[in-house]
Amino acid sequence: MSHLPTIMRVLELHSYERPLEALTVVERPVPHPIRSDQVVVRLTAAAVNPSDLMFVHGRYGVRKALPVVPGWEGSGVVVAAGHSLWAQALMGRRVACAATNNGDGTWAEYMLTTVTNCMPLLPSITTLQGAMMLVNPLTAWALVDLARQSGHRAVVQTAAASALGQMIARLSKRYDLPLINIVRRAAQVDQMQASGATYVLDSSVPDFADRLHDLAHRLGATLVFDAVAGELPGRILKSMPKGTCVVVYGALSGSPCQVDAGSLIFRQQSIKGFWLTDWLRQQGLPGQVQAAYGVQRLLGCELKTGVRACFPLEEAIDGLRLYMQAMSAGKILIIPGLRRYRGQK
Amino acid sequence: MSHLPTIMRVLELHSYERPLEALTVVERPVPHPIRSDQVVVRLTAAAVNPSDLMFVHGRYGVRKALPVVPGWEGSGVVVAAGHSLWAQALMGRRVACAATNNGDGTWAEYMLTTVTNCMPLLPSITTLQGAMMLVNPLTAWALVDLARQSGHRAVVQTAAASALGQMIARLSKRYDLPLINIVRRAAQVDQMQASGATYVLDSSVPDFADRLHDLAHRLGATLVFDAVAGELPGRILKSMPKGTCVVVYGALSGSPCQVDAGSLIFRQQSIKGFWLTDWLRQQGLPGQVQAAYGVQRLLGCELKTGVRACFPLEEAIDGLRLYMQAMSAGKILIIPGLRRYRGQK
Repeated sequence: MSHLPTIMRVLELHSYERPLEALTVVERPVPHPIRSDQVVVRLTAAAVNPSDLMFVHGRYGVRKALPVVPGWEGSGVVVAAGHSLWAQALMGRRVACAATNNGDGTWAEYMLTTVTNCMPLLPSITTLQGAMMLVNPLTAWALVDLARQSGHRAVVQTAAASALGQMIARLSKRYDLPLINIVRRAAQVDQMQASGATYVLDSSVPDFADRLHDLAHRLGATLVFDAVAGELPGRILKSMPKGTCVVVYGALSGSPCQVDAGSLIFRQQSIKGFWLTDWLRQQGLPGQVQAAYGVQRLLGCELKTGVRACFPLEEAIDGLRLYMQAMSAGKILIIPGLRRYRGQK
Repeated sequence: MSHLPTIMRVLELHSYERPLEALTVVERPVPHPIRSDQVVVRLTAAAVNPSDLMFVHGRYGVRKALPVVPGWEGSGVVVAAGHSLWAQALMGRRVACAATNNGDGTWAEYMLTTVTNCMPLLPSITTLQGAMMLVNPLTAWALVDLARQSGHRAVVQTAAASALGQMIARLSKRYDLPLINIVRRAAQVDQMQASGATYVLDSSVPDFADRLHDLAHRLGATLVFDAVAGELPGRILKSMPKGTCVVVYGALSGSPCQVDAGSLIFRQQSIKGFWLTDWLRQQGLPGQVQAAYGVQRLLGCELKTGVRACFPLEEAIDGLRLYMQAMSAGKILIIPGLRRYRGQK
């Protein structure tokens, strides 16, 4: 492992208060595998996702000790590996990779992670595409898989115009799973319909509840994917058939879910959560391998992601700002290999 | 069936607005069985439960066409029966009985109901006790059964000082199921402890969250029975272990349940409802028979109910008022056979 440099640059978070001011590029020693199942990835690209924004604001389900390198997902090449067979098998391979729940993340030149947080990339997948593979495409895949496995006749989703929502829409179409897409604005209705969605409802129109009621009962929809939380899941449940379950995977509203007790008691409705980390653990290795290849086969079509801009580490704050202005406008990537020329800016 | 009178007195509801003013005693024809699985019960007693108050205010899961006779449960003697074997087998027997979801209820001299809404009473059970058997004792039995069947190591309940909460407390003790009782006032802590409860927490003290956290994790409690709704289930979930499920069976607060999306997503917590009507349907006949006899064996001890007062139909409004002032102070029964002497009052 003598080929590795000793020092790397990382984007380090010093405080969960005012995170954009608390993120700075610093130098750190390059990590080395200690346990046999650990690997070091030289990162080609790292994605910026809503979960990263939640994390740097201290509002994600996992809060790490500070200072810490953020970034939940990225891609690169495995350049050092522990002694286990699996770790050694990854040496030199291109992988999509995720940060561990207690270590540093992907907004860095190198990251120490574990074998189970890496998925080898097929030759047809570029490393840049691989950097955006785990969080959104795998979540879309997992949610649609959940709907198909549990035999729901049709599904409802909120935040349908988001990157993830659009993946769920395309994937449902592929599998002939009727999907009712809920958006917040009239313009998003046109946008979804133009991209091939059959059922699109605008939650801001006065007769939204009636329209949803008719459509959900006609299609037999009894599952809801929600990324908004707040009062929306409770509103939706009132229009849904008995026995409907809401699966919450995001909280864009920033508010607690509100659900009428009557919906739960008299209409057998329920509400639970979805977290990709848990889902992956539940799948075990065979399920993970199946998902990894299933997702990669669809990365060029149903699970494709649009990129808006790439930034070097030193300019990443500008990238975060851009992303926060319009999260549906395309993905922001951090490319640690890019350098700002000294004297520039 | 010529032994039946043609006219009966009932307490009739004319409006879901201001129900106490919209309840009057009127005369109606005595009903007769039409379908083969129907029976007519001459009611000895009818209970007043929180679900009846919700019903007359139009806030229960079932709203019936007006005018209607309220009253979900009661007891009496089967005096007329349809042609089916089961209906005929009940003729002349004492039963606990429940109203159907679309017919008139128990606040009357006679009620038409179905065989599956009747449970024959054991000789050791008085008919008055039988009038309070289905709603509270059977719910307590069903909830504790749910906890035991699903293998939870310990359980939390809210509204622990209510009649139903105290039954759950006594029943859990019988089955050695550790139970954390949550009450709203210091006086209720003393009351619960005096009646033998081991773990009692007052949700109004400042360190309630910490105390609940310690106790729930120490005992391994992962199931919550909630009758309050509003913000309480969400508050409780924050102190509970990962994977905890809240089962809502009442909504004393009158407010929607509020739960943080983070609890659902990152801590695998969930919230669903419990309705006795659904539970009974799921049990099928063998399960119902087992529950009927199980509950009756415990009616004198763990599932006993204290009676505060009995009222004739004409005075039932006074009984409802008394009940609304203090629902934990003992049950109110309506005794249709009691008559106010003319000229009295």
